[in-house]
Order: sequence, then structure tokens, then C-alpha cells
Amino acid sequence: MSVPDGLLFTGSSVAAEAATDDLTVLRAMLTAEVAWVRAQERLGLAPAGAGDGVDRAVSLLSGSDNAAWALVVRVAREASGAANPVIPLLARLRAEVAAVAPGALAAVHAGLTSQDVLDTALVLVLRDAAATVSADLTRAAQAAQRLARTHRDDPALAVTLAQAAVPTTLGARIAVWAPGLAAAAGLLDAVGSVLPLAYGGAAGELGAVAALAGGDPFPLVEAWGDELGLPVGPGPWHTTRTPFVRVAGAFAEACAALGHVAGDVLQGTRPGVGELREPAAPGRGTSSAMPHKVNPVLSVLVRRSAIAAPALVAQVLTAAGLAVDARPDGAWHAEWPALQQLARHALVAAAAGAELLEGLHVDPEAARRNLAAALPDADGVGAAPAIVDRVLGALATRASEEGS
Amino acid sequence: MSVPDGLLFTGSSVAAEAATDDLTVLRAMLTAEVAWVRAQERLGLAPAGAGDGVDRAVSLLSGSDNAAWALVVRVAREASGAANPVIPLLARLRAEVAAVAPGALAAVHAGLTSQDVLDTALVLVLRDAAATVSADLTRAAQAAQRLARTHRDDPALAVTLAQAAVPTTLGARIAVWAPGLAAAAGLLDAVGSVLPLAYGGAAGELGAVAALAGGDPFPLVEAWGDELGLPVGPGPWHTTRTPFVRVAGAFAEACAALGHVAGDVLQGTRPGVGELREPAAPGRGTSSAMPHKVNPVLSVLVRRSAIAAPALVAQVLTAAGLAVDARPDGAWHAEWPALQQLARHALVAAAAGAELLEGLHVDPEAARRNLAAALPDADGVGAAPAIVDRVLGALATRASEEGS
Amino acid sequence: MSVPDGLLFTGSSVAAEAATDDLTVLRAMLTAEVAWVRAQERLGLAPAGAGDGVDRAVSLLSGSDNAAWALVVRVAREASGAANPVIPLLARLRAEVAAVAPGALAAVHAGLTSQDVLDTALVLVLRDAAATVSADLTRAAQAAQRLARTHRDDPALAVTLAQAAVPTTLGARIAVWAPGLAAAAGLLDAVGSVLPLAYGGAAGELGAVAALAGGDPFPLVEAWGDELGLPVGPGPWHTTRTPFVRVAGAFAEACAALGHVAGDVLQGTRPGVGELREPAAPGRGTSSAMPHKVNPVLSVLVRRSAIAAPALVAQVLTAAGLAVDARPDGAWHAEWPALQQLARHALVAAAAGAELLEGLHVDPEAARRNLAAALPDADGVGAAPAIVDRVLGALATRASEEGS
Amino acid sequence: MSVPDGLLFTGSSVAAEAATDDLTVLRAMLTAEVAWVRAQERLGLAPAGAGDGVDRAVSLLSGSDNAAWALVVRVAREASGAANPVIPLLARLRAEVAAVAPGALAAVHAGLTSQDVLDTALVLVLRDAAATVSADLTRAAQAAQRLARTHRDDPALAVTLAQAAVPTTLGARIAVWAPGLAAAAGLLDAVGSVLPLAYGGAAGELGAVAALAGGDPFPLVEAWGDELGLPVGPGPWHTTRTPFVRVAGAFAEACAALGHVAGDVLQGTRPGVGELREPAAPGRGTSSAMPHKVNPVLSVLVRRSAIAAPALVAQVLTAAGLAVDARPDGAWHAEWPALQQLARHALVAAAAGAELLEGLHVDPEAARRNLAAALPDADGVGAAPAIVDRVLGALATRASEEGS
Repeated sequence: MSVPDGLLFTGSSVAAEAATDDLTVLRAMLTAEVAWVRAQERLGLAPAGAGDGVDRAVSLLSGSDNAAWALVVRVAREASGAANPVIPLLARLRAEVAAVAPGALAAVHAGLTSQDVLDTALVLVLRDAAATVSADLTRAAQAAQRLARTHRDDPALAVTLAQAAVPTTLGARIAVWAPGLAAAAGLLDAVGSVLPLAYGGAAGELGAVAALAGGDPFPLVEAWGDELGLPVGPGPWHTTRTPFVRVAGAFAEACAALGHVAGDVLQGTRPGVGELREPAAPGRGTSSAMPHKVNPVLSVLVRRSAIAAPALVAQVLTAAGLAVDARPDGAWHAEWPALQQLARHALVAAAAGAELLEGLHVDPEAARRNLAAALPDADGVGAAPAIVDRVLGALATRASEEGS
Repeated sequence: MSVPDGLLFTGSSVAAEAATDDLTVLRAMLTAEVAWVRAQERLGLAPAGAGDGVDRAVSLLSGSDNAAWALVVRVAREASGAANPVIPLLARLRAEVAAVAPGALAAVHAGLTSQDVLDTALVLVLRDAAATVSADLTRAAQAAQRLARTHRDDPALAVTLAQAAVPTTLGARIAVWAPGLAAAAGLLDAVGSVLPLAYGGAAGELGAVAALAGGDPFPLVEAWGDELGLPVGPGPWHTTRTPFVRVAGAFAEACAALGHVAGDVLQGTRPGVGELREPAAPGRGTSSAMPHKVNPVLSVLVRRSAIAAPALVAQVLTAAGLAVDARPDGAWHAEWPALQQLARHALVAAAAGAELLEGLHVDPEAARRNLAAALPDADGVGAAPAIVDRVLGALATRASEEGS
Repeated sequence: MSVPDGLLFTGSSVAAEAATDDLTVLRAMLTAEVAWVRAQERLGLAPAGAGDGVDRAVSLLSGSDNAAWALVVRVAREASGAANPVIPLLARLRAEVAAVAPGALAAVHAGLTSQDVLDTALVLVLRDAAATVSADLTRAAQAAQRLARTHRDDPALAVTLAQAAVPTTLGARIAVWAPGLAAAAGLLDAVGSVLPLAYGGAAGELGAVAALAGGDPFPLVEAWGDELGLPVGPGPWHTTRTPFVRVAGAFAEACAALGHVAGDVLQGTRPGVGELREPAAPGRGTSSAMPHKVNPVLSVLVRRSAIAAPALVAQVLTAAGLAVDARPDGAWHAEWPALQQLARHALVAAAAGAELLEGLHVDPEAARRNLAAALPDADGVGAAPAIVDRVLGALATRASEEGS
Repeated sequence: MSVPDGLLFTGSSVAAEAATDDLTVLRAMLTAEVAWVRAQERLGLAPAGAGDGVDRAVSLLSGSDNAAWALVVRVAREASGAANPVIPLLARLRAEVAAVAPGALAAVHAGLTSQDVLDTALVLVLRDAAATVSADLTRAAQAAQRLARTHRDDPALAVTLAQAAVPTTLGARIAVWAPGLAAAAGLLDAVGSVLPLAYGGAAGELGAVAALAGGDPFPLVEAWGDELGLPVGPGPWHTTRTPFVRVAGAFAEACAALGHVAGDVLQGTRPGVGELREPAAPGRGTSSAMPHKVNPVLSVLVRRSAIAAPALVAQVLTAAGLAVDARPDGAWHAEWPALQQLARHALVAAAAGAELLEGLHVDPEAARRNLAAALPDADGVGAAPAIVDRVLGALATRASEEGS
């Protein structure tokens, strides 16, 4: 048995894996296929019980993690022959349906094309990932606000262009993290909630779907969206990649907002600074060479993703700009791993960022000492406390408006 | 005299140059400086007439294009000593003010930092560019809708993965361009209109501004925003780069949406296809080697920008994720050319795209012939006309809602 | 059990998986650890048999694919606590060694740091991947040369800027593929063969290694390199990332050279052109919606990688430029998945490209027909045959020089 | 008159501007055109004196900077109609030749295509830029070696993952800069010196050149290369973009190697560290808000380019992988600004880096103090001095081998 790559190097918390791993994607494809049969059944286009029958086949194929994982490996092997994983997956699904629910066989994937299923599966995965990332960003933003409030008046050094600048407060230095985190959360909510069902049939003309539906294809398409809880846009977006461009941008914005925090934390933890310290956890941050050392691994993981994510967005945008015909000849395929990894980076970074900020230790004494050392004659803290108030006030207003 | 780079290789229409060239940026910086003095004057913090005085100095410095251009060259030369162009520009502005309006001298740049002025100037430039690009995208989207309506029922070949797939209509092939263009226009409007004033003073603490204002710095900041017609956010965003990340993403989305169109047009104009033809213009598309040939230069320019833009967004995102301290030590500086070029690409591509779509020649006979050649036994056009109706209907509804 | 991501979306041939998957990386890390103990043993710094003892522990841990895969999952889970997978892997290795070869325990990882092991493991993986990609590129280049020779004189249309330009020959159109493929192969050989051992200890000072070795650390370092067949550079490169920058660039150049071929093939297979056809294979290129259709999946896979690879190089370069201190705080970590995926893309693309070119069907009659249709009055083929001769001659000369 | 963009934001030293600005590119295009006429003259294909005649016209057109600059603006305006600047430039050149050397008119651009001239002009510009960057990198590498030697034994703190790790020496920390700088210099030399003449005629078939030459086109092509001092490769590379991919990679590697240095210097100059200080220069590093402050602007400029360059390489690689037909429909055009800016970034960064390292102030007392504060019980400096010796020895050996 051979195994995939990527886990060792981007893997992190269980939640992050669960939200974007190949197993999740595989199951999302099967979920889309089942829902399509249920939609047909609802409209009387498939025999009663067909949806349940296909669902049973899916359970047999992928209900246990071990079976599902083996299926991932098998499908991945065969995917190169089709340049996409839907086709080999479908072959196995059909074989299973033929065995356990033969009456449903004709309805499986009827009228669909691979892209309908793969894009819809990615939408399901990315929607859930967006919601998780947004929740973690919100936790992080709230923690930043609490810290800013607590340290609103604690004098600290402001550094610009790597040099001592003027006095400010710890609160003002921390307060600027929150709007970026909150904005990224808001964008993910906005973008994630409108990620639409992908449909279009063979070439975006819905020919086979219309034939299946006996005329108007849209009631069936709408029923599919309804089964999956996905909005149905006005037309196919096989080559109009706005939804994926938007969600990719939102994940990258999340990584950037978190990277801003991590960069400041890392500077604050350096020797000779010592103003900030990551929350401890058993075994976390150990070094293979220096047992006494505790590394700021949450910040490191976040910064890693802030460095890695931008290029992944560029991949998605490049692919979007090269979309052509009714299905692109390579640009579509380049989107998949980029989206999967972007979501993964955002998930890991947001989880780490939330934990980092919720447990961040701030040392006002060290800050005061560093300020005095760098600017012995400095006086006051500018308007730093007023800025903290204004930023926190605006975020509170926005949160209460959104909550109402 | 030495000259800058970039014009030969990205230059295009006058409008595009005007919106992002160095002269525009230089004038925007001076506009920000004048407005700051006017704001002080309004609050009684500068002598009456100070704003007009500085404005006069600015006119002398940069009123004529020749003088302004010479100033660009001089400032650019000196900018390397400061790592930003505000400082040498300010030295010249102060010298001019000292000569023509000495009473205003103390108010020039009082309490500000370079980043306040440079970021605000970029905001002014990008806001205007966003509006221009959005308008051109809207023209392009409307033209696509007209073409889709006209060719709603004209049979044509749908191609997937570079191969003949099934019949569709020219209208359905064209209709999918419009939502991407319209969405990008909408995003640019949304993002451009909230690009905020940049402020913060030396290190985001507004210390000198507060001192100047005798306490609360915000009335003065608000007055500055008012002078410039820019919204004032709750706090400094020197290191919280959401505004630039958003506008960069919107410009790139525009390039991608336009690239999708250009790719399809280029395929449609190829030898053996001949279904689409770019609008002609005197001298356009000539070849240096083949006088008989007319090149589809509008599509080529658009596709060029679709290929180039994604990496520029990655630059902006990388910089945002590396923001640190109260002003970053290189990440900030990496944003400027990326934003300027992104705006330029979007401007050129949107202008070319609008002209392309408003004048695109569509040959239904060629489409019918190609369909018959590729799929001689094919019948019908699927649900293509219904899809056209649905897509156009949704866009019309959205447009009327936005217009109301 | 949870599973990693990435296989479904970039997976392809068994060879490609084997060369870069997590299992390969895990085993390379263990190989590096065993070799380190053997090196100590060779210099009398570890007890006789220590290397074999650790090797036995490694076999127990990861000898079977099932066990190794389970270890990957476990290590990946725990890696987030350390921000790298070496630390949890080492804990398990030490536990196993303690059980089966307690006398070797002290020598395991003695004096090393995580980065020594992880970078060295990546070097082993990338070196092998580079050799495989180079071999496939050479096959592809040779196939292109054969095709160019065969079709040296077959008249064909040259297209520029998507328009009919002038007559040329199929051979001249094909001949330009070969130098790019051959150059990329040569670069991979040159770069891959000098990928060096990574060493440096805790912070690039070799302190613990020197202590272990009783003074001069270099004989031990050299012995390690010798065990692994890797060149030993003059000093640590923990933060001097030239080796990874070079190999990343070489993989990306390979993808670009292959993408050039794939783009031409895809145009040549389009409806209305029909000059080129991919080699068939059972089940390859099937469509889930259109059973009659055969998709050019080899070209699509190659083009996918040509679109995806450039951004991954940007990730590696960004990380290299952000290297800081004695081990970077995030930039190092951003390299791993980028390098793994780049190698994967190059492997899949080169394998597909070699198969594509070795079996490519060329239809001179179609080319002649298309030329006549586009340029009915054209005459001659320029100097196309002479160009073919010159290009093939130069490649043959170079190949014979390299072979001698 | 309107002016181009880019100078304000990437401009720096006069040398850097001169090497890549639009004026340089324009003159390189004219140089290529003159050389082509001289080559024809040499082979008796143009009347005696034709080359001098065209040269005279070129002097009239662009001899003075003012005239040349005005020509840049005019050509840039007209370039959008042709999607490249050669065509409008040629129109003006022909008009001037018709006036001053009518007998040479027929030879101007005879048989060439725009891409021959534009690519060749870029080669001339990039070759010179590569040589300049390489020289500056060599200066920087030598300065790093001197510093490493001087501080070979000065104890200092090694930091990993932003935390105090173990003692090392300042020399060992500095020594690792040199190999990256020297390697980048070597790569630029290797890549720059083989950048080849671009030729191919209308569509890479040399049809019109062969007709002009009365048969074999290669003697004329060789003569052109000889006039320009450029190697002539076996065939056209209009779509085989290895030369530009290689030089782009080399410029980016230079930026990354320099970025590594800048990052370390910036950390070393921070408040609370104070181990390193940039060389002073009149007016350099001044702040618009804090007159007392001196900013490390050389490092900031370098780091800026290290952040910006990677995405520009991705643009070049993406374009290379999308090359298609005999001249690409957008991918070619996307290369120009990316290459121009990459060269600019490398020039500015290398010049700044050389100045930075040649004048870098190192404070061993501060380093000793910081080490003691962070690791009070630490002892020794590991094998740091031996590593310094080995690294410097290897570089000296390489330099003497290259020099011999």
C-alpha cells in the first residue's frame, strides 16, 4: 500500500485534517452523488427508495475509515487515467449500487458531468472549512480585544523600520491585530455562505439533465441544491470561477491577518525583549537538540502559513484567468490541490492563532523596562489609550449589529 | 535626464496611464499634504490661508506636467536614501512653502509620518482606478449580455478539455462571461468605496497629532478624511493591511474575469474556427513581419494581464502577512509597486475588454458549420437558451436592485 | 483513522507517489538517523553494532507499509506540538531502540538538530525525484527529436498570436520542444547531483557534534555524508537555502518546458485542427458524461502542473529570502510542502510528457489541409527543414559530449 | 505630457535605473535594429553605408535623453495598438531613415519579426544587468568574508525559532551569508553570459530571412549575433523560454541571498540587540516624523526586494509554461514587465547589499553582553571558528579556481 503526501508537512490538529483531507473530499463527492439521486426521486424521476439505496452503497464503500481510506488510494491511482477522481470513484459506486440497489443504478450520476460533482464536493468542504476558520478567527479577535483592553495603558516601545520609535502602549500594539482578524472572519462568513452548487452537465448546456427531467432542468437542479443545503446560482460556473477565487482570497486574507499577529508575537518573545510568551502545553515547543528550550510553535505554524498561502491564491487566480471553453484543459485541475491546501493552511493557522491569543502571556514590566532602555527620555504614550478605545468600540458595535 | 521603466511594457491608453502613473501618485501625495494643512486650518490649528498657501506651493512644484515629471525624477533619485519618496518630496515642498507661504510652513506634515501620506495617496489613486475599472467591467458585462441575447439560439459546438463535446448555443457560451465581469465590478465598487484614510502618526500612536490638536487627535483626523472624501476607520492600519489586500484581490479578480473572456475569444478567432473576430481600429493589430495579418491585440493584452496579475496579488498578501511592529521593515515597501502595477493591469485589461466586447463580431454561420463538422449527428442545443434567459434575468434583477 | 490530503488531487502513477509521498519522506528521515549512528560507529564513537541495532528498530517501526503508514499518521498528529515531524518520530524511534538495541540509544540523533535530519531527508527524496524527472524529460526530448526528424518536411501552418501566419513544417513546430526539455533535464542532473548533506547541530555551530567527536566535528560529518552518498558542503546551510532554491527552480523549469509541449498538443488536437492525437490506453481519457469522447488527459495533466508549479517556486524563494537567525521561525517550515508538491508535479508531468511524446500521433495530411485552408496562396516552408537539422544536430552533439 | 509609473516606488541609484529603465530598453531595441542592417551590409545584402545611415537616424531619434524620453512616451502610447512597442518604434525609425539615409530603408527590419527585436533587446539589457548584479554580489560576499574573519572568535548568541539557543560566534553567524551571495553571483555569470540572440522571423521559420539571404539564413543570423556580441543558439526560442526562465531564477536567487543578509542585519539592529549597525551616509535613513531616528534603509530596500522578487519569477515561469504556437497570445507579453522589474529589484538590492556589507558596523561587546544575558551559564562557542575557517577556505579555493 502506498500513501499520499502532505500530512507530515502541513498536518496539525485533528479538526484541520478532518475538514480538508482526502477522505473528507471523497465523502463529499459521494454525498453529492447521493443527493443527486434523492433529488431525482423527489421529482419522481427515480424510483422510490433509490436515494436510500445509493446511500447504502456509499456506506458500504466508505462508511468505515479504513475502507474509505483504501478507496481513496485506489481512486487516486486510477484518477490519472481520467485526469480526475470522479470517474474511477463513479465506477466503484456503480458497481456497489448494482449489487445492493440495482433499481437505483440508472439514476446514479445521470445527466451529470465530473465537474458538477467535483466542484460541488469542493464547495461542501470549503464551506465547512470557511465556517471553522471564521469561528477560530473570531475567537482570536475577541482574545486580542481582551488583551488590548487589559493592557490599554501599559507603556511600551513602538518600533518602526526595526528601530525604536516612540512610546505607545501594549494595548495599542495589540489592538491593531483585532480588526484584521475580525474582517477576515467576516469575509469568510460572507463568501462561504454563498458558495453555490456546481451544475451544468456535459458542457454547461444541461442537455442530459433537461432530457432526464423531460424539459426544464432547473427544478431538478434546485432540488439537488436543496438536498445539499447549497444556493443555486443562475447558471453554470464551470468556467466562471468567481466562487473559488473569492473563497481562496478569504482563506489567504485569514492567513495574512494571523501572520501579522504571529510576527509581532515572535518579535515579542525574542531574547532581549521578553514581553510576550506563548501559552504552554505539555510537550509543546520542545527541541530535539536543546531540551531546555521552549519554541513558540503556535506562532511559527501561523507564520509558516502566512508565507505559504499567497502563492496558493495566485494558483487559483491564474487558473481562473485561464478558464476556457466549456471546461478548461488543465486550469480546472490546477485549482484542486491549491484550494485544498489553502483551506488546510487557514484551518491550522486559525486554530493555532486562537489558541495563541487566548493564552498569550503579556509582561507589562518587561515592556516598561524595554521602553526605558530604548527611549530613556520619552514621556507619555501619545493617544494610544484613546486609539484602543476607538478600535474596541468599533468592533463591539459591529459585533452587536451582526448579532442583532 | 534618466527615465523610469514600465511604460513601454505595460503602457496602453491614456486613461490607464493617468490613473496610476508616477505623476498621479506624486500629485496624490501632495494632495494629501495640502488637505492636512486645510484640516488644521479648519480647526484653527493653522493660520487662515495656510491651506491655500501650501496649495500654491504645490501648483508651483507640480502644476505643469513638465515640472511635475522633473520632480518625479528628482524625488525618485533621492527616495533611496529614505527608503520612501515622501521624505525627499517633503523637503522640496517645505522649501517651496517657505518661499511662497512661510506662515504655513509649520503646518506642513505636522504630526504625520511618511506612511500616513504614502498610504493615503495610494488609496486616492486606487479608489479612482477601482471606479474606472468597475465602469469598464460593467460596459463589458452589458455587452456580453447583449451578445448572449442576440445569439441565444444560434447552435454552436461546446468544447471540453479541448475536445468536441456536445451542441450548445453561442449565447450560452457567451452568457457565462457576464456574471464574472459583473461580480468583479461589484466587488471593486464595494472595496473601492470603503478604502480608508491612512493615519497614525510616528508609530500608530498619534502622539504628535494629539499634541498638535491639544488633546483628542480624532477631530483633526476626521477633518483630514473629510477634506479628501475618504472614510476614517476606527484606528491606524499601518500594519493591518486589509484595505490593500481587498483592493488587490478585486483588481486580480477583474483580470481573471476578463482573462476568461479573452481566452474564449482567442480560441474563437483561431484558424479553422473563425467564429469570433475582434473589432477593427485603424492601425490596430498590425504585424511587423506580415502586413496582411490582423492580430487580436485586445484579447492578447487582456490575457497578458490575466497571466501577470495573480503573482502581484501574492506580493501584496505576502507583505500583509509579514507586517510587523508599528511599521514593517520591507513588507510595506514591497506593496507599492505591486499595487501600482495591479491597478495598471486591471485598467488596461478592463478598457481593452470593454472595447473588445462592445465590438466583437460573432459569426453564427461559422459556429453552425463547426458544429456540423465536429458532431454531424448531434441534435438540439440542450437547455442552452433557457440558461441564457436565467443568467440574463438574474443579472438584470441585480442591476435594477443596485440601481434602485 | 484519519487520512492526509493531496493524493486525490495530484496523485498519478505509482512511481510518482513513491518518490515523494509521506511514507518516502518518513523513511528518508529514518535512513538519515540510522546513517548517523553508523557514522559514529565507524569512528568508534558508538558501540559496534549500534547502527545495525537502530536499523532493526527502524525496520520494526516502518518495515511494512501498513506500519509505516500508521506511523505517518501518528507522527503527523504529534508534529503540530513541535512544529516539525522529526521530534515525535524521534520519540518513537528512541522507544523502539531502547527495546531492541539499548546499547545504541545514546547514539541516536546525538548532537543533531531536527533540521539536520529533515533537510537531509528532503535532499534524499528530491535527489531521487530529480533523477527520475530528468530521465523522463530525456525520453520526452528524444521522442520530440524523432518526431521532428520524421516530419521535417511536412508542410504545416505556423500560428502567431492565435492567427494564421506563414507556412512552416510540422518538424520545425515540434523541434522547438526538444531544447527546452533537454535543458531542463540537464539542469536537474546538475542541481540534483550536488544537493548536499544538511548538518550544523543545534544552531549551526556543531557544538554538540564537536563534543561528541572529542574536538573536530568534520570527520563525523563527512562519515555521515559518506553513509548517505551525499556531498558535504563547507558549512551548514540551515539559513543559506541555495540548494533548495536551485532544485525548486529546476523542477519548475521542467514543468514549464513540458507545459509548452502540452499547450501545443492541446491546440493540435482541437476540433477543426486534428493534427495531433494523444496515444491511447485502455480506459484513459474517458468522460463521465460523454462515453464517445476521448480526452487528452496526458496533456491536461502536464498543463495542470505547468500552471501550478510557478507559485510553488515562489513559496520556496520567499522562504529563502526570509531565512533569519540560525533557524528561521516559519520560513523553514513553509518550504517543506512546497518542495514536496513541486517534486510531485514534476514527476507526474514528466512521466505523462514522456508517454505523450513517445506515442504522439501526427497527421501530416491534416496539417497540409489546414495550411491550405488558412493560407491558400502560400508557398514554400521557409527555412524550416534547415532549422530542424540545426536544432537536432546541436542536441546530438551535446548528448554525445555528455555521454563521452 | 504624461509619465510612466514605477520610478517612485522602485527607483534607487542611478546605475540601477540606467540598467533597466525604458530608455535603456528603447535604445537596446534600436541597437538591435542597427546591428541587423550592419549584418546585412557585411554580407553584401544591404548597400555599403546602410548601417551607418541607420545609426545616424537612431542618433537623431534617441541620441539626447530628452528626445529619447519623448520617444518612449510616444511609442508607449502607440504600443497598445500593436500589443508591442517594436511596431510603433519601427514606424518612427523608418520615417527617420527615409529622411536621412533612404538607401538603407529597405534593409531596416527586413525579414525580422517584432519578437526577434524585443527579445534580443531584453537579452542585451538583462545581460548587462546580470553582470552588474554579479559584481555587486561579489563585493558583498567578499565583505561578508572579511567580517566573518574579523569576528571569527567573538562569542555571540545563536537564535533558533526566535529563541536563545546556544553560544556561537559573530563570525559563524556572518559566514553563512557568503556562500549564498557567491553562489548567486556565479549563477548570474553563468546564465548571463549565455543569453542568446533571439531570431526566427515571422513564425520561427526564417522564411523571409532565407529569401533575403538568397538561401541559407544562418550566416546572416550569425553576423547579427556577432555585431551584438551575443551567442547564436541552434534555433529560434520564441516559445522555448529557457533563457528567460534561467535569468529570472538567477535574479530571484540573488534577491533571496541578499534578503537572508538583510533579515539578519535588521534583527541585529533592533532595540535591545544593537549588535549591528548600517553604514551612515548624509541624509540616509531620516524619518519624516522622528528627526532623531536613523532607519536601516539599505536592509529595508533589500528585504523589500526579497519579498517582491519571488512572485515575479512565478510570472516568468507561468508565461514560459503557457508558450504556444509560434508566438504566444499573451504569455510572451506577460514576461516583459516581470523581467524588467526583476532585474531592477536585483540591481537595487545588490547595490544596497554591497554597500551595507562593506560598511556594516559590528559590535562584539554588545554581542557578548547579549549572550551573557540570554545564556548566563553557557560555555564555549561550539565549533564556530572551525566552521568559519572551512567556509572561508572553500570560498577562497573556488575564487582562485575561477580566477585562474
